[in-house]
Amino acid sequence: MKACVIGASGYTGRELVKLLLAHPRIELSVITSRSLAGESVEKIIPQVVGLSKDLTFSNPSIEELCQQEDLDIFFLALPHGTAASYAISLLQAGKKVIDLSADFRLNSTETYKEFYGDDHPAKELLKVAQYGLPELHSLSWEKSNLIASPGCYPTSVLVPLAPLLSSDLVSCKDIVVNSMSGISGAGRNASEKLLYCERNENASAYGLPKHRHLSEIEEQLSHFAGQQVILSFHPHLAPMNRGICTTISVPANDQTEISKIYEAWYQAYANSPFVNVLPTGSFPQVAHVVGTNRVDISAHFDTRTQRVVICSAEDNLIKGAGGQAIQSMNICEGFEETTGLL
Amino acid sequence: MKACVIGASGYTGRELVKLLLAHPRIELSVITSRSLAGESVEKIIPQVVGLSKDLTFSNPSIEELCQQEDLDIFFLALPHGTAASYAISLLQAGKKVIDLSADFRLNSTETYKEFYGDDHPAKELLKVAQYGLPELHSLSWEKSNLIASPGCYPTSVLVPLAPLLSSDLVSCKDIVVNSMSGISGAGRNASEKLLYCERNENASAYGLPKHRHLSEIEEQLSHFAGQQVILSFHPHLAPMNRGICTTISVPANDQTEISKIYEAWYQAYANSPFVNVLPTGSFPQVAHVVGTNRVDISAHFDTRTQRVVICSAEDNLIKGAGGQAIQSMNICEGFEETTGLL
Amino acid sequence: MKACVIGASGYTGRELVKLLLAHPRIELSVITSRSLAGESVEKIIPQVVGLSKDLTFSNPSIEELCQQEDLDIFFLALPHGTAASYAISLLQAGKKVIDLSADFRLNSTETYKEFYGDDHPAKELLKVAQYGLPELHSLSWEKSNLIASPGCYPTSVLVPLAPLLSSDLVSCKDIVVNSMSGISGAGRNASEKLLYCERNENASAYGLPKHRHLSEIEEQLSHFAGQQVILSFHPHLAPMNRGICTTISVPANDQTEISKIYEAWYQAYANSPFVNVLPTGSFPQVAHVVGTNRVDISAHFDTRTQRVVICSAEDNLIKGAGGQAIQSMNICEGFEETTGLL
Amino acid sequence: MKACVIGASGYTGRELVKLLLAHPRIELSVITSRSLAGESVEKIIPQVVGLSKDLTFSNPSIEELCQQEDLDIFFLALPHGTAASYAISLLQAGKKVIDLSADFRLNSTETYKEFYGDDHPAKELLKVAQYGLPELHSLSWEKSNLIASPGCYPTSVLVPLAPLLSSDLVSCKDIVVNSMSGISGAGRNASEKLLYCERNENASAYGLPKHRHLSEIEEQLSHFAGQQVILSFHPHLAPMNRGICTTISVPANDQTEISKIYEAWYQAYANSPFVNVLPTGSFPQVAHVVGTNRVDISAHFDTRTQRVVICSAEDNLIKGAGGQAIQSMNICEGFEETTGLL
Repeated sequence: MKACVIGASGYTGRELVKLLLAHPRIELSVITSRSLAGESVEKIIPQVVGLSKDLTFSNPSIEELCQQEDLDIFFLALPHGTAASYAISLLQAGKKVIDLSADFRLNSTETYKEFYGDDHPAKELLKVAQYGLPELHSLSWEKSNLIASPGCYPTSVLVPLAPLLSSDLVSCKDIVVNSMSGISGAGRNASEKLLYCERNENASAYGLPKHRHLSEIEEQLSHFAGQQVILSFHPHLAPMNRGICTTISVPANDQTEISKIYEAWYQAYANSPFVNVLPTGSFPQVAHVVGTNRVDISAHFDTRTQRVVICSAEDNLIKGAGGQAIQSMNICEGFEETTGLL
Repeated sequence: MKACVIGASGYTGRELVKLLLAHPRIELSVITSRSLAGESVEKIIPQVVGLSKDLTFSNPSIEELCQQEDLDIFFLALPHGTAASYAISLLQAGKKVIDLSADFRLNSTETYKEFYGDDHPAKELLKVAQYGLPELHSLSWEKSNLIASPGCYPTSVLVPLAPLLSSDLVSCKDIVVNSMSGISGAGRNASEKLLYCERNENASAYGLPKHRHLSEIEEQLSHFAGQQVILSFHPHLAPMNRGICTTISVPANDQTEISKIYEAWYQAYANSPFVNVLPTGSFPQVAHVVGTNRVDISAHFDTRTQRVVICSAEDNLIKGAGGQAIQSMNICEGFEETTGLL
Repeated sequence: MKACVIGASGYTGRELVKLLLAHPRIELSVITSRSLAGESVEKIIPQVVGLSKDLTFSNPSIEELCQQEDLDIFFLALPHGTAASYAISLLQAGKKVIDLSADFRLNSTETYKEFYGDDHPAKELLKVAQYGLPELHSLSWEKSNLIASPGCYPTSVLVPLAPLLSSDLVSCKDIVVNSMSGISGAGRNASEKLLYCERNENASAYGLPKHRHLSEIEEQLSHFAGQQVILSFHPHLAPMNRGICTTISVPANDQTEISKIYEAWYQAYANSPFVNVLPTGSFPQVAHVVGTNRVDISAHFDTRTQRVVICSAEDNLIKGAGGQAIQSMNICEGFEETTGLL
Repeated sequence: MKACVIGASGYTGRELVKLLLAHPRIELSVITSRSLAGESVEKIIPQVVGLSKDLTFSNPSIEELCQQEDLDIFFLALPHGTAASYAISLLQAGKKVIDLSADFRLNSTETYKEFYGDDHPAKELLKVAQYGLPELHSLSWEKSNLIASPGCYPTSVLVPLAPLLSSDLVSCKDIVVNSMSGISGAGRNASEKLLYCERNENASAYGLPKHRHLSEIEEQLSHFAGQQVILSFHPHLAPMNRGICTTISVPANDQTEISKIYEAWYQAYANSPFVNVLPTGSFPQVAHVVGTNRVDISAHFDTRTQRVVICSAEDNLIKGAGGQAIQSMNICEGFEETTGLL
């Protein structure tokens, strides 16, 4: 099966290329990048030396890509806004598309406009796209050829929280989410703010109170809660390359018991190889999940405040991006879910 | 004026020694440490080379310290629990004591026992001690010869939040505080968990939901709110040497307006050289306060959730420890508040 | 084929376990550690969650290990000095042994005593052991059942330098080697010197002028030069988890030409999948090799000083330890050399 | 005394501003930057909040600067090549100039052209400028109103090595210098190569074999050796904000003894408050000198190779730049040498 990665110059694209080149069931045969066209992939992504002797970055037009009959599946690692136009053409040409941008993650065109500023360029596709979080949604090419792979922050929130809201084990009001992200989450842009000396030995909040990922978190949680969820989301940058550490404070309700929470998790994730449930009193460590496709989660009941504290950790570039996209592909293609990811 | 630092082997003690050696109004003449007795101070704390040619660590008994008539002021940088016995004797001998441990920060003996596990060894002193946060409490040797210097986390929470609660500009229910601390906050203990390779490229929550500093935060906030405040506190470790980045989510009330919050801050801190109020939409950066005695603060009104998000940053070893202790001394001694701290 | 790792509590052991659990031709069935006996492997090494559902660390006696008939190959990740006693018994029991310690890396018992202080406990085995650097030595179980896997620093020096000395393309006098190692190279010992705050934002030389790895470097280079090589070796610690960056200054001789150096490398490593030759003027980056089993190398002719500057980079825990041990096993077992390593 | 910093947008300029604002004998009254003109200094350099309430960056012409009669001394923190034109005009206007760029560090116009590519724009000033390394050169405004402040790497090499060459205690042939610099040494340029994720967990050589600082090192060492010194210099980047760790390998000669080396250092630096001589076997640590104006040095005699290994550490932005410039000013102005630097 032949795959193509479109737009592989950023950190997400590079990690995705690395994972796909090592994937035993996929031949990654086209890797595009406008800025890197003509460059050897092994030179630009030295982590893959030995995996792709002759591949170079190319810069074909959308039309050329659509016409390549042997290309079965396309991963879009493009900036938000750019991905949509590729997706439209590729889907029309009958291709399978997994989009790692935010372009198709929302259902609501209003929410899209509120958080992204523009009218959505392909509203009808918003309804068609599958939200590619395999732990929470059953994915299949029969449903749609378009998978919108979730954002890094949303993955770290939804995996632990969605099953609890859908079982009504905690309140869905007044939820406060704090996350720390490694610097790769801010992208590979030559900006002063992202220089080594600016972020090393530094930490800060940013983008609150209305970070774009909030829209995606709320829409998904509302789906699972069966009612509208509005919450507080506070992203931070921490001085590390990769990883997200999320701490969620959610009010208890009449049903809340720590044992029920764990029971709900064990049930929801009995067959999920990438969710690692840690005991209460134990805290997910970013260093334990970096390089893996896992989300580690734990919960703690604070009886003094009657709130539950949920902690999670993941690798923002794997479970929060490229790894999750491959996991979705594995499922849809009928491969073992963990293929290329363990 | 001659000063003594008792227990200078940890990160707090070392920073305090460095600051006191550079202080123009103080002669730091005795530095004690059981483990380092006999060692040259400049060898152990190379940052002070040139400031203290001949000082060595010593290990005198409490009695010997009490009898040194030329020693006016004692800084206790001892572990919690050990400080109290020193304080009792020194105060009886008529000495001034600034304790950087947690031993005298609380008023309530019940809260002390709840959070620290033991009965307090000198209950009467709990009532006597001044809580050494000069931005919020007026300090003076006439009130008491014992100052309990606040914890690092509490400082980062109380400075921005106390004036808002005392003016009733935000609710005092359902407050959620998330903090990231540099690794020096965990102390200088040769434990596997604090090895470079364990904390580098790592981040995690710890100690929640009942970290010991919570008791101090709640007691102080209750004082300023005029009613009992119970809140959620989530400390984290981030991979940096120093600094605390705190994000506070507090529900709005009928009075809440962003302009009033800033007005309250400007009023409360008009004469506070170490509080730096940043505009809304701007986020305090740990790197901007490391090496200073400052707290940087900003506030944001999230109208969607009707919660206010307050951000703060400080250096845990300076404003969160040694710098604040010196600031308190400066005030009580009638020195310029910023002496030795700018 | 069943393998056993003895002494898996350190950074080397953990990385080796991770690689072996992912190796498609090996079943890692026994993992020993005195201090971790009884613990779940996935709990202690969370990077392998999903790869080893039920394994626990055990602490069998040497005799018990020798008697386990289905165990074919043993990897010793023990401290120097401890490994030898295991190796002796295992070899007598007919087992294959790959020792990652320094116990069998030298040929000369005198050199061993000079650098390690004690008489070697099994002198006859020094002659028998194969030096497990597959790029330079042809390995086979027929030669011996004992492979001494090279040190991390020696690998970074020998790979680029040995072919040049054996072709007499540079001088073998007055060589000066400087290396920077990530902190994992110092081991996983709960010592104050290795605390996060001690090594972060720090760099220094250590252990010179007679670091133990020097003995191994000199003995191997002498072998390839056909004469005794004595050189200067300056190891340093740099604030990163993993990786070695080595810079070698070697005097030119009459034969020296940059093109000949590259020719020699291309010839020597034409079939070496893990040596990556970079053009002159290009500098190996630790970040490009971390996570791989590669050594990246480049050379520069400084005509002003008539010295050649050779740069190399590798992952100290993979090519410098566990990955190289597996590479040696792959070759001896007739597996593809890159199995489990790409 | 009123000072002006010209070109304060980079890391060197910012540190210099911070030091001058805290200097008790200087009033820093003008701070220029083309890109930051109009901005508040405290906003851009938050480390100085409280030290400079009202200063803003300005962008006056050279002529305007020359005409400001109350400005006594000018620090040029401009890029190489730009500084010279400012210096020429300011000197003609009778001002004192301390240039932190490389424009006046060399004596030889040929060497300048060889290493910097262009003809020097003010050759006559090359002869006039004092090389501002106070430990090695006696500085005075009577000699010249132009001080060329040394580069960061040269300082770390010259301080330990110059006294040994001038006393003929080591050979001056075949010297090999390896240095690791923190990332601030590469400047504050928004380039992809300096992004956090590119340099974190990374290390590499760069710019060898002919880094520009080599010219300065050789010219100065030749001066002290009394003969031409040509050496090998290998700069590296290590993942830390600040600091330089240098390791020098220099062949012994007939005079070489470790005790003589230390004797020479003690003699040369008896009155140098910023040189810290550590015992042999002890290694300067970057973390011990960061934030100080110190160079820490130690020496080791490797009898096997008959080479001496000299180690040094300094803060590249203080002793390697702004601190050293202030030290030179202190001396020339007759202030205590350590004023504002301890």
